[in-house]
Amino acid sequence: MADPILNDISHRRFNLLRGSWILVSPHRTKRPWLGIQEKPSRTTLPEYDPECYLCPGNKRAEGQPNPKFSNTFVFVNDYSAVMEEQADYRPDSKDGSLASRLLRAEAVTGKCYVICFSPSHNLTLADMTPAQIVPIIETWTNIYAAHLDPKSVLAKLAAASSIPPLTQDSLELPKAQYRYMQIFENKGDAMGCSNPHPHGQIWTTTSLPEEPATELQQLIKYRREQGGSHMLVDYAQLESNEKSRTVFENEGFWAGVPYWGVWPFEILLTSKQHKRSLVDLTKTERAQLAECIAEVTRRYDNLFETQFPYSMGIHQAPLTGTSDEIECSHFHIHFYPPLLRSSTIRKFQVGYEMLAEPQRDITPEQAAERLRGCGGELYRKKLE
Amino acid sequence: MADPILNDISHRRFNLLRGSWILVSPHRTKRPWLGIQEKPSRTTLPEYDPECYLCPGNKRAEGQPNPKFSNTFVFVNDYSAVMEEQADYRPDSKDGSLASRLLRAEAVTGKCYVICFSPSHNLTLADMTPAQIVPIIETWTNIYAAHLDPKSVLAKLAAASSIPPLTQDSLELPKAQYRYMQIFENKGDAMGCSNPHPHGQIWTTTSLPEEPATELQQLIKYRREQGGSHMLVDYAQLESNEKSRTVFENEGFWAGVPYWGVWPFEILLTSKQHKRSLVDLTKTERAQLAECIAEVTRRYDNLFETQFPYSMGIHQAPLTGTSDEIECSHFHIHFYPPLLRSSTIRKFQVGYEMLAEPQRDITPEQAAERLRGCGGELYRKKLE
Ligand SMILES: O=P(O)(O)O[C@H]1O[C@H](CO)[C@@H](O)[C@H](O)[C@H]1O
Ligand SMILES: O=P(O)(O)O[C@H]1O[C@H](CO)[C@@H](O)[C@H](O)[C@H]1O
Repeated sequence: MADPILNDISHRRFNLLRGSWILVSPHRTKRPWLGIQEKPSRTTLPEYDPECYLCPGNKRAEGQPNPKFSNTFVFVNDYSAVMEEQADYRPDSKDGSLASRLLRAEAVTGKCYVICFSPSHNLTLADMTPAQIVPIIETWTNIYAAHLDPKSVLAKLAAASSIPPLTQDSLELPKAQYRYMQIFENKGDAMGCSNPHPHGQIWTTTSLPEEPATELQQLIKYRREQGGSHMLVDYAQLESNEKSRTVFENEGFWAGVPYWGVWPFEILLTSKQHKRSLVDLTKTERAQLAECIAEVTRRYDNLFETQFPYSMGIHQAPLTGTSDEIECSHFHIHFYPPLLRSSTIRKFQVGYEMLAEPQRDITPEQAAERLRGCGGELYRKKLE
Repeated sequence: MADPILNDISHRRFNLLRGSWILVSPHRTKRPWLGIQEKPSRTTLPEYDPECYLCPGNKRAEGQPNPKFSNTFVFVNDYSAVMEEQADYRPDSKDGSLASRLLRAEAVTGKCYVICFSPSHNLTLADMTPAQIVPIIETWTNIYAAHLDPKSVLAKLAAASSIPPLTQDSLELPKAQYRYMQIFENKGDAMGCSNPHPHGQIWTTTSLPEEPATELQQLIKYRREQGGSHMLVDYAQLESNEKSRTVFENEGFWAGVPYWGVWPFEILLTSKQHKRSLVDLTKTERAQLAECIAEVTRRYDNLFETQFPYSMGIHQAPLTGTSDEIECSHFHIHFYPPLLRSSTIRKFQVGYEMLAEPQRDITPEQAAERLRGCGGELYRKKLE
């Protein structure tokens, strides 16, 4: 049980996954808001938009036409942040000079994809049934599997998998072995998303990025210190018993506002058993995961009766790595939504948060209670 | 010299101060922007606004009247994130239970102030002459000095200082000894600032927050490994020789886009000599610092001919700490501005950045070159 006194006093909470602290100031929600308000998002979209560069049959930003896809559709990002081929860069480091000590850089190559969740311009995850979400999970799994180090235990598992492989002939997979794949979605204007057609992104790089690297260190450390048990298995079990931060759970997964969440309605969705990555999930577990994603995103939209903006993404095993790295990885999804009080009032992680420490106002327990109460049908359906 | 090839390829750069990496994708600036645009900020404000709760003589949000101040004005934040007095919280940790291992919290007390930069509702740092900025630096120094551990070497220095002490009788200083003081400013709607009257904030806490704690670790490590030299002394010297990332410098300070800057036009302003905190600065150095702040903020406004939003803040020695912590601290200011391409197009640090690694598009060298070229008179003055 979280001590109820924490609803009334300023305190710090420790983020187990990152090994860092956040500041919680519950009384601060009483502050009147005089700052800028977000534009409420456009709520009604057509099923097909002739101007949209992600709709089937339309032309993309650089002129390539999309096929008439009927399920998910994956293509290489027209403005990838990393590329497969680029000029060579070999820094002349290690010469002991001041510059080589202070100015450190390394080249990064990789491949970026966009994944349209469905042909429909207006079908967000919150609008979808779990059955409609399953194909997205299958596509994520397929793309991830196709990039795994062939020597990895995960690759062998994937080869024996029941998922029908990607059927897009047009999609060329990379020849190089990359280190990590980040699957994510930016949803809504407030999260820098430039096209409302529901879609996610996949960035794959030669480097292990900072966030998953930090988490992996913490996961490895925990397992070593706790005699082999997995942090997120222990954590999901504890939360599932405590209930105060749970938003939704089923047999396979727990979703709730983590004890150390930074964003007001942040959610951590984690497998209850130890699963290293998407390829560890059985067909039943993919259906359970789909149910959890549906429940989380629908509650988000119901909370302020709006298209709730967020960034979400999957953390899981690197594509290649040490056996400690692979075996201690634990499949989970983070949802980071900016809204605080209504569809137009967001939380700013600015001055103090950038310079000193992340800070939140309402407690995770208060946020979870509100999200638990937002189940049921999608508000938009009721209005129809 | 930064290898020119870094203008064309994706790479990572290492942030010395934080000990972490960022991803740089220079070619990505070619991407068209179809997402949301910021509202350009209201550009003309009256010198006095009868509705403003920060103008002299007006009533604040909770009804207290402001004095008719003529210089800076400091008051305790009406909605402080931390408070001096609160109910006691003593977690029953160390009982070895799963909960005590996984759910860690600690109480935080402290004191938050607001500092109005001047009586004028429309006089931002960019509008001010260096001579007008000096009193702000003096007030920061005074407040910082008043919170120092009396046993600290810095407190003794402060006592011998030439700065006239705070003359505000009304301001009650805390009885408790706090650990750290974060001085910062959020400027502009885009940075969650709710009142355009130029003002900053000061949050003082019993805990050493994450960011300064991380930097301090890196500074201590560098000094130990480099036989006593200070990271930011070495760095400022290197940058001052290289010039490619310099925006402005004078005898005492260097300001430029750091090699590892995350935000497109991020600036690091650091003392060239080793200064632990504000109280180490001489009168001449305060004038040099004021000149640097004026040059940075004026260039920011000139860049896109707008009231350029940013969060800025001072990192310096903790109020109390080990002698390693005090002696390795190095006075510097970070400016974190969100704009990327124009007064209405910002950089979003969202999906990939939140889940994987901070990412920037234009290189620090390109950004510095543009800011160097923006000197001279404030654009608003020319339009008058
Ligand atoms: O204190 P203010 O100006 O009301 O609030 C602003 O600055 C704070 C400190 O960076 C943030 O926590 C808030 O999210 C932001 O809106
Ligand atoms: O790739 P997009 O959707 O054009 O761009 C969006 O997501 C990227 C990855 O999180 C960010 O780097 C961009 O700042 C954001 O606008």
